[in-house]
Amino acid sequence: MMKLFDNINEDVYRAYVFWSAILVGKMLVMSVLTGLQRFRKKAFVNPEDIASNPKLKLKFDDPDVERVRRAHRNDLENILPYFVIAFFYILTNPDAFIAVNIFRAVAVARIMHTLVYTVMVIPQPARAIAWLVPYAASFYMTFKTVLYFL
Amino acid sequence: MMKLFDNINEDVYRAYVFWSAILVGKMLVMSVLTGLQRFRKKAFVNPEDIASNPKLKLKFDDPDVERVRRAHRNDLENILPYFVIAFFYILTNPDAFIAVNIFRAVAVARIMHTLVYTVMVIPQPARAIAWLVPYAASFYMTFKTVLYFL
Amino acid sequence: MMKLFDNINEDVYRAYVFWSAILVGKMLVMSVLTGLQRFRKKAFVNPEDIASNPKLKLKFDDPDVERVRRAHRNDLENILPYFVIAFFYILTNPDAFIAVNIFRAVAVARIMHTLVYTVMVIPQPARAIAWLVPYAASFYMTFKTVLYFL
Repeated sequence: MMKLFDNINEDVYRAYVFWSAILVGKMLVMSVLTGLQRFRKKAFVNPEDIASNPKLKLKFDDPDVERVRRAHRNDLENILPYFVIAFFYILTNPDAFIAVNIFRAVAVARIMHTLVYTVMVIPQPARAIAWLVPYAASFYMTFKTVLYFL
Repeated sequence: MMKLFDNINEDVYRAYVFWSAILVGKMLVMSVLTGLQRFRKKAFVNPEDIASNPKLKLKFDDPDVERVRRAHRNDLENILPYFVIAFFYILTNPDAFIAVNIFRAVAVARIMHTLVYTVMVIPQPARAIAWLVPYAASFYMTFKTVLYFL
Repeated sequence: MMKLFDNINEDVYRAYVFWSAILVGKMLVMSVLTGLQRFRKKAFVNPEDIASNPKLKLKFDDPDVERVRRAHRNDLENILPYFVIAFFYILTNPDAFIAVNIFRAVAVARIMHTLVYTVMVIPQPARAIAWLVPYAASFYMTFKTVLYFL
């Protein structure tokens, strides 16, 4: 039997929880952004959602709604695995300076990703870079974790 | 170095794990619901899934299948971030009564969400309310966590 | 107040983190697979992604791209809840032999799932079996967790 979490650096732990909570909040906002676009473009996909207005028809392919939905799905694909691997990474007793700055950089980059994808579309490679920073960080933490627990 | 999880309230911890496990089970059931609709409506999307029956054609837009898939995606968007933020919220030493009842309310509301979305479709705002309760709870826990770890 | 994680079996804990990190890495690879198919088939879905080449048009329904995206979504639906329920399962003080082999089997099966879905398509029931093993394991761990924390 072991004392599992007794040797975690407190700064690393607090930075992880704080910046991850920021990213949970950012992900929650995606639902509001989707809802705003659905109401603005009157693009609803369930019959019961337009039952009160017989003039409306279902609309599955509105480009503005789909753009927000792609950004949201990209969050699911990238931020959710990040939460897991960053938690494991903390257990590898990482250098505190590196770890804290990874957590900051990932949070800032994912917020930028949402902004340039859905709020103000900026020419590439803006979105590519905002995606790559957290992606590379997640791969780095994956390698560190796998090697540590091998 | 710190003793990270030594001051967690046991009732809060047990309620979190129990109700979260219920929600994992609920999410797993979505795959069965999707599969049932795919077989019932013969709506398969991979060529290798219909190879044994040459009469079948691929079918990407069956409304009953897509309804279950939308409910499932809504789970991914809402329940998975909830697991993370509720775990962080436990670390903020919350009031046990509030915390336990949040976990209960979220689980019940998400089960209701699935029922009114996929099993027996009920006029709005049934689904909107079932969605809003866990959503508001997640935002509340996000604010609590961010303020605590600021 | 409790000492939460003091009685975790170290072998179980290490196997969980190691094999889960492998699966995070596997999920991250899906983004590269999607990107490769998008460039190979010139199937981009955002106007800003094709702005530098006026000959290209948006393409939303390429079968090779959609196949990888279905595999990726299947990961979100299955692997992410697995991370959560396997973590809870560890807290139930499971038999170490069973737990470690569940984690191994799930990781191997999910890697097989990706291979037979996206890299080399093999007739069914190859993909069905590769999906069922982790699915059944997740349900088993869900029941164990619910009963333990009831």
